[in-house]
Amino acid sequence: MAYPGFFIVFEGGDGVGKSTQARLLAEWLRSDDGGARDVVETREPGGTELGREIREALQHGGHVEPRAEALLYAADRAHHVATVVRPALERGAVVVQDRYVDSSKVYQGLVRGLGDEIGRLSAWATEGLVPDLTIVLDAPVEARRLEGDPDRLERETGEKAGDLRQGFLDLASAEPGRYAVVDGRGAVGEVAAAVRTVVEAVLARGDG
Amino acid sequence: MAYPGFFIVFEGGDGVGKSTQARLLAEWLRSDDGGARDVVETREPGGTELGREIREALQHGGHVEPRAEALLYAADRAHHVATVVRPALERGAVVVQDRYVDSSKVYQGLVRGLGDEIGRLSAWATEGLVPDLTIVLDAPVEARRLEGDPDRLERETGEKAGDLRQGFLDLASAEPGRYAVVDGRGAVGEVAAAVRTVVEAVLARGDG
Repeated sequence: MAYPGFFIVFEGGDGVGKSTQARLLAEWLRSDDGGARDVVETREPGGTELGREIREALQHGGHVEPRAEALLYAADRAHHVATVVRPALERGAVVVQDRYVDSSKVYQGLVRGLGDEIGRLSAWATEGLVPDLTIVLDAPVEARRLEGDPDRLERETGEKAGDLRQGFLDLASAEPGRYAVVDGRGAVGEVAAAVRTVVEAVLARGDG
Repeated sequence: MAYPGFFIVFEGGDGVGKSTQARLLAEWLRSDDGGARDVVETREPGGTELGREIREALQHGGHVEPRAEALLYAADRAHHVATVVRPALERGAVVVQDRYVDSSKVYQGLVRGLGDEIGRLSAWATEGLVPDLTIVLDAPVEARRLEGDPDRLERETGEKAGDLRQGFLDLASAEPGRYAVVDGRGAVGEVAAAVRTVVEAVLARGDG
């Protein structure tokens, strides 16, 4: 690793509990049990002020061309990685992030049919920054918790939720050393315990 | 050409009169003298509603990472080409546009130092749409008309105006068949007449 910090990303479909689990993991890592670490919780899209403006543009309701959408996510990511994620990793923090490159690969690459170019675009946007650990929260589509009215992207991808799920699992199985698939179906506390077990083991390797 | 229309782009540094000349050319093309053509006048960035939101994000005053900036321009372009430019060209209109890919190549590629990747990004964003004619309005830096307070990008590029000028001239000399360099220093009407002469000749080839 070129930096002293540690970069953990949660991925998975809508409603699998990524943001809840990211928050609980961050709380635990900050606690004495978790090593009283310096933790930065963040998300894509919308992890910066510029990102929130981009997110508004994406959700504004009108038609957005698929390539424009992919480029807006990449722009959000470029700004977020350079101004939030890298500085945190360089000072030695653990970054716990809700969604990253794999969400673009699956949503834009697979669902929108834009293919491998999405991975290339993200690699350029992030100057090649790859997570140290990606946790895919996996759950059958019917077990998910979706609250409120779905936004445009959620409506459009709802019918392809099965493909999305498989997309994340395929990315995980291609690089087992950097991924952990955690069953997202249990109670929130049970899933959080499973996440902690994975993270503890990986950090012990790094700390040791 | 894969479409019946004709795609004309004005390029050049800030204050050389691109938007004025684009407007005058469009007026002439619509007139009986110019062939009473169907003309669409447009611009990048900001030629669509989504593009205006992107433009606001770009000008919001805070720091914007260079790669994020390049990706935002590419997103604006992808949406604009797909929803405005291509539909117009496909119905046979003449599109007269203020700035396109070359502005990104020169501002982001050259001034920001992002190099050839900018051309690749634009090619993907536009699915390879290239202007039929690009008019570079050229003027020495000291002859330009800049009004009002410069925005962030104008401030930052002001000191590199000489490099920018040369960047556009280099692009033109690499593809003389698709470019015309017009001296932008004369009175507005003189420059407009020079532009019309170029466009008339090129359209006569296409119409003939």
